[in-house]
Amino acid sequence: MAGRTHGVVAEPITFGFKVAGWVAELDRSIARLELAAQQAAIGRVSGAVGTHATVDPRVEEHVCRELGLEPDPVSTQVVARDRHAGYMSALAVVAGTLERIATEIRHLQRSEVGEAFEPFGKEQKGSSAMPHKRNPVMTERVCGLARVVRGHLVTALENTALWHERDISHSSAERIIFPDACAAVDYMCQEMVKVLSGLEVKPERMLANLQFAGGVVFSQRVLLALVESGMSREDAYVIVQKAAMRAMDGSGPGFRASLEQDQEVTKRIGSRINDVFDPWAGLEHTDLAYERLSLGVSAS
Amino acid sequence: MAGRTHGVVAEPITFGFKVAGWVAELDRSIARLELAAQQAAIGRVSGAVGTHATVDPRVEEHVCRELGLEPDPVSTQVVARDRHAGYMSALAVVAGTLERIATEIRHLQRSEVGEAFEPFGKEQKGSSAMPHKRNPVMTERVCGLARVVRGHLVTALENTALWHERDISHSSAERIIFPDACAAVDYMCQEMVKVLSGLEVKPERMLANLQFAGGVVFSQRVLLALVESGMSREDAYVIVQKAAMRAMDGSGPGFRASLEQDQEVTKRIGSRINDVFDPWAGLEHTDLAYERLSLGVSAS
Amino acid sequence: MAGRTHGVVAEPITFGFKVAGWVAELDRSIARLELAAQQAAIGRVSGAVGTHATVDPRVEEHVCRELGLEPDPVSTQVVARDRHAGYMSALAVVAGTLERIATEIRHLQRSEVGEAFEPFGKEQKGSSAMPHKRNPVMTERVCGLARVVRGHLVTALENTALWHERDISHSSAERIIFPDACAAVDYMCQEMVKVLSGLEVKPERMLANLQFAGGVVFSQRVLLALVESGMSREDAYVIVQKAAMRAMDGSGPGFRASLEQDQEVTKRIGSRINDVFDPWAGLEHTDLAYERLSLGVSAS
Amino acid sequence: MAGRTHGVVAEPITFGFKVAGWVAELDRSIARLELAAQQAAIGRVSGAVGTHATVDPRVEEHVCRELGLEPDPVSTQVVARDRHAGYMSALAVVAGTLERIATEIRHLQRSEVGEAFEPFGKEQKGSSAMPHKRNPVMTERVCGLARVVRGHLVTALENTALWHERDISHSSAERIIFPDACAAVDYMCQEMVKVLSGLEVKPERMLANLQFAGGVVFSQRVLLALVESGMSREDAYVIVQKAAMRAMDGSGPGFRASLEQDQEVTKRIGSRINDVFDPWAGLEHTDLAYERLSLGVSAS
Repeated sequence: MAGRTHGVVAEPITFGFKVAGWVAELDRSIARLELAAQQAAIGRVSGAVGTHATVDPRVEEHVCRELGLEPDPVSTQVVARDRHAGYMSALAVVAGTLERIATEIRHLQRSEVGEAFEPFGKEQKGSSAMPHKRNPVMTERVCGLARVVRGHLVTALENTALWHERDISHSSAERIIFPDACAAVDYMCQEMVKVLSGLEVKPERMLANLQFAGGVVFSQRVLLALVESGMSREDAYVIVQKAAMRAMDGSGPGFRASLEQDQEVTKRIGSRINDVFDPWAGLEHTDLAYERLSLGVSAS
Repeated sequence: MAGRTHGVVAEPITFGFKVAGWVAELDRSIARLELAAQQAAIGRVSGAVGTHATVDPRVEEHVCRELGLEPDPVSTQVVARDRHAGYMSALAVVAGTLERIATEIRHLQRSEVGEAFEPFGKEQKGSSAMPHKRNPVMTERVCGLARVVRGHLVTALENTALWHERDISHSSAERIIFPDACAAVDYMCQEMVKVLSGLEVKPERMLANLQFAGGVVFSQRVLLALVESGMSREDAYVIVQKAAMRAMDGSGPGFRASLEQDQEVTKRIGSRINDVFDPWAGLEHTDLAYERLSLGVSAS
Repeated sequence: MAGRTHGVVAEPITFGFKVAGWVAELDRSIARLELAAQQAAIGRVSGAVGTHATVDPRVEEHVCRELGLEPDPVSTQVVARDRHAGYMSALAVVAGTLERIATEIRHLQRSEVGEAFEPFGKEQKGSSAMPHKRNPVMTERVCGLARVVRGHLVTALENTALWHERDISHSSAERIIFPDACAAVDYMCQEMVKVLSGLEVKPERMLANLQFAGGVVFSQRVLLALVESGMSREDAYVIVQKAAMRAMDGSGPGFRASLEQDQEVTKRIGSRINDVFDPWAGLEHTDLAYERLSLGVSAS
Repeated sequence: MAGRTHGVVAEPITFGFKVAGWVAELDRSIARLELAAQQAAIGRVSGAVGTHATVDPRVEEHVCRELGLEPDPVSTQVVARDRHAGYMSALAVVAGTLERIATEIRHLQRSEVGEAFEPFGKEQKGSSAMPHKRNPVMTERVCGLARVVRGHLVTALENTALWHERDISHSSAERIIFPDACAAVDYMCQEMVKVLSGLEVKPERMLANLQFAGGVVFSQRVLLALVESGMSREDAYVIVQKAAMRAMDGSGPGFRASLEQDQEVTKRIGSRINDVFDPWAGLEHTDLAYERLSLGVSAS
């Protein structure tokens, strides 16, 4: 399929390679959440200002052990709120990761792209007014909820600087933001599991889009082939850019066809033209991603 | 051109109508900024705690008049920071409006859409490696800066609750966020003026995309025509949805062609089929937008 | 009472003057909310992409009139979200104003300040463990909720840049943030009404704190009196600073007493010393604030 | 010194114990920053869409090794931005920790508290108008900058969801927020090092404040002593609360004196009254904090 930068076709990739990027980011997010959860799983039973004035530290140790918490090495009336801010940060970064994947699917489901689709029930209606509609509503919802979690992080960070041995200003805020953010990210995960496990991938549309404007996605390969043939990079760039721009304008016969009509080009790389426009060329290193992620999956 | 909801073609609109929406939002944003600027154009020369203990209020009035400011009716050591937060809010909403327009252009410039393009110099290179690239870099930049201004608003809002008759915590923050946010929004405006005044609009691509999948954009009109012919809405929905889904799957002959092969459909609306698929039908009310905005422009 | 900057006593003010600053800011906030509410009280019945393709604009006008809304001059599938962001901005600025007042009361209720107190029931317990506790829990709560509303504003601003004629990403977010933010600000207002209408003000503590360190709050008046007597500002500053610092250190007899032991000082301003240390001197212009606010209240 | 919750004196602590809480939080913040820096020290030389189409992965490995970076296991045109968001989160949490310490010092430097002071040069002027002023301007500045960094985090999180194999919207934002946030936190650290290494601590004010209202800070100890003597908790609470409230009102002879006039109280705990009001009682467990932090410091 076409890899895209700036929303513009760039060079070939595979869908599996794209997913590998998601896997790597999700792995990091899981690690982040686990660490943040561990840093927040802290208890204290240390009295009104944290000094254990009226409660033996062994009580704290016993209670925390029973609850599966670590005792805070030093507390005030509460466990310090940097831990909570750290946990909310992890939630917000995870929400951003889910948003990134969701945004990708929303793009792929665009009418003009059509390369992947959220699951859609046989009896489902995308719109009561427009029967043709099949909208990426789950991934849109996930994007919206990521914004909510980001907002909650602002709140959690502001809760850190409590006065002296504690003021209770954080409490009214935490009662809202922590259940809401945890529930939101949990729901986002569930939605994305549904989306990804039921994702309809359209290889034929991927291949068709890869040939956009007669194969401009191969422009770098053409450029390099011309340079290897001895042409200066400047000259080659002008030829390739002109053919590509005309092709994308719709005013020429398509990128590859246009080049094949250019004698200077065919003289130099005509015999290799199938290689230059081979979608699999340049993908030989993508297996590396799976190896590095220990996924044991091959792109081929 | 195709109006799109959820990134999916929906019903026909015109490009001018889309722009009218931008104009309306920009008008609101200008009004917002003007109001916020007026509410922030406040001065005070009222001494260490705002009481005019050592300075006559007439000095304040004179100085403010010279500077084109209103004297604060009551101040502390400073003008209250809700005014500054209000001003930054206006900047952030304006930045969001510019981001909305910029996001639209980024979408329209996607390879597979190709309906409008940022200006691109004759000698310009979109990418040194990929000669075919023409990227919406100005509008992407505008989107990034909108995020920066949003961040600054968080800061400006936190600056409101100063201690007693003033603490100076807001000052270190304001020295950063106000010049930066004002410069960013000014630059965003300049970039968008360049983008919009040099925008390359592609009517032929708009028309081609309007016919996506053989005209599914007209599915509601088909549905309504069938219902008007006496068919139940449920039955009509099933027929139209099936034809549209097949067309979008690429597994049928296109939406209109598919309907024209359906005797039940042609029997009922065959004679009106050109009207049903007329892109201008349904646009007769768009002039209203221009009238309401007093733009005196016609869509036709 | 002592006006304070940087948390440090500065110059005399009155409590009424402080409240006048709140009134002015609340007046601005009410105006902001009213304007934002008006700008958000917009309806549209304009079909799938805003063109009124299948619905007559007169329907829109009728429906909006019935609902007390203005019809959007030009809409997409929805009313543009800058209006909602503008409304949430107004809520966040109002929340910041309430937070500023709440923060002030929290400061005034500090043990060492003790100048004003939230209402406290006869049978109320501030802490089950510490019977002496009387905590400003309502104003702390208000401060926490202001943080929540600020977070929601981030979300509302991100909702502006929807794709094309609408995507639904804003919806999942708005269902959370708008009811929550409106309820939070409403509750904050109710709490602050309770706090302010039941506020216990302690004039005797205000007067006592005004004499902090033997009256350093009058240091500027001493400085100016010495300068008026012909002493250079530099010399006067050194004398006054030294006396004040010693007084605040607790190593001298208090600021006024210390000055009265200094023959150079008494020679010059001894006869005017009561005037210099008169708490009402310098407050004659505070009535101006009430006049400017049309409050018709006098500080005296 | 008095530990304080809600800004109200609560129970005795020591200044060292307070600092131990800062040390623990700073230790966590350093660990957070180190982890985030490590997770962001990632490089990639993998071509236009991350596939290594035109560059051998061994080049990437070599370059990254030279630069002290880990190669990204799978990249797009860029390293994924969750790493950058994670790094900015760590900066914002650290900024919040510095803000917490700075806020504490601002409180301790209040005129009415006076327990600790930022360093102040011999020749320094806190205010040109008010010679007595000694303001916590460095810690106020630190608080303001924490707000700026929080704002930048919103931006960094929004940068995560780039389109496809990268859009460049993050770039304009990152050029601003990363240098600014790193410089701000670095500066905040430097300021806080100056503040803390030059901090003037006032034990005599701490002891005086500990005796606020005749020792209400010992109210829990009185309550517990009365309960141990056989009085019901309800009765004891009423007696202690009444004495404390009167003392804080200034309408009685002070908390301890008031209790000593109450025969019911003296009969029960008169012989132990010095123990009950012993500031060191209840601090025996604070050494635990130092041990847990491996600080090897004793509170005594």
